[in-house]
Amino acid sequence: MSTPTEDDKKFMKIAYEEAKKGYDEGGIPIGAVLVSSTGEILGRGHNRRIQDSSPILHAEISALQTAGRLPASSYKNTTMYTTLSPCSMCTGAILLYKISRVVIGENRTFVGSEDWLGVKGVEFVVMDDEECRKLMERFIKERPGDWGEDIGEEGEER
Amino acid sequence: MSTPTEDDKKFMKIAYEEAKKGYDEGGIPIGAVLVSSTGEILGRGHNRRIQDSSPILHAEISALQTAGRLPASSYKNTTMYTTLSPCSMCTGAILLYKISRVVIGENRTFVGSEDWLGVKGVEFVVMDDEECRKLMERFIKERPGDWGEDIGEEGEER
Repeated sequence: MSTPTEDDKKFMKIAYEEAKKGYDEGGIPIGAVLVSSTGEILGRGHNRRIQDSSPILHAEISALQTAGRLPASSYKNTTMYTTLSPCSMCTGAILLYKISRVVIGENRTFVGSEDWLGVKGVEFVVMDDEECRKLMERFIKERPGDWGEDIGEEGEER
Repeated sequence: MSTPTEDDKKFMKIAYEEAKKGYDEGGIPIGAVLVSSTGEILGRGHNRRIQDSSPILHAEISALQTAGRLPASSYKNTTMYTTLSPCSMCTGAILLYKISRVVIGENRTFVGSEDWLGVKGVEFVVMDDEECRKLMERFIKERPGDWGEDIGEEGEER
């Protein structure tokens, strides 16, 4: 664990914009941005379960997908910004590509597999961002079934 | 760990066909099939890194994608067949959807994160299938750079 920097706040804002875009499209409001060590945005995206009827396009996976096919060296010293604690699939993707650092908007509405990041030596920061949390709280209250489906839980009927 | 059944051999054959199709398309030869408890194929696919320029469409992820958006209950008692030991992303996806069982073609050419499956109580079987192994050995020899990229390793130039 470490403290968020000013850059972290800037990029989390962009991840939040992605989440909000997802919400406005009628989707699950989680956003992510992959940033290089020099501050270049390599990829950004949001959860597309509803929009694309996809079980795999979580926010982090969408960001990796928009970054496209890259050599392993391109992921060196990158940071993944995500508005919500990453699930096991997204955590596994972060470990696969050896992304160096993960900044998490909040982990109050859902705790994913951030413990694996720690075990595998990936630095991560939880910002406990109020805006990220409020958007998720609103979505979970409005559509518990869709949310349950996204994390492999049996929620209410949709 | 447990012993492969006759059904396991049948479905691994289908996963291998997917892998072979990927190889014939000029791609990375790994295939996967998601099968319900009643033996219905819910999804099948192969690695599409080269074909779709995608860093996320590993075989297991492709199989989940073709299965489409499903309620959590649909993954109950399913088996994921994969020709190769699943990487951390694919292992994480298997855990996310609480897939009950994983049958692995081989883990000699690559050992992914199957240890996590064990830790999380997911039953898995390694078939040590010669056909799966030979296809991967051939591919790794022919295109080490593409293979390295797929597992986040710096291989030879492509």
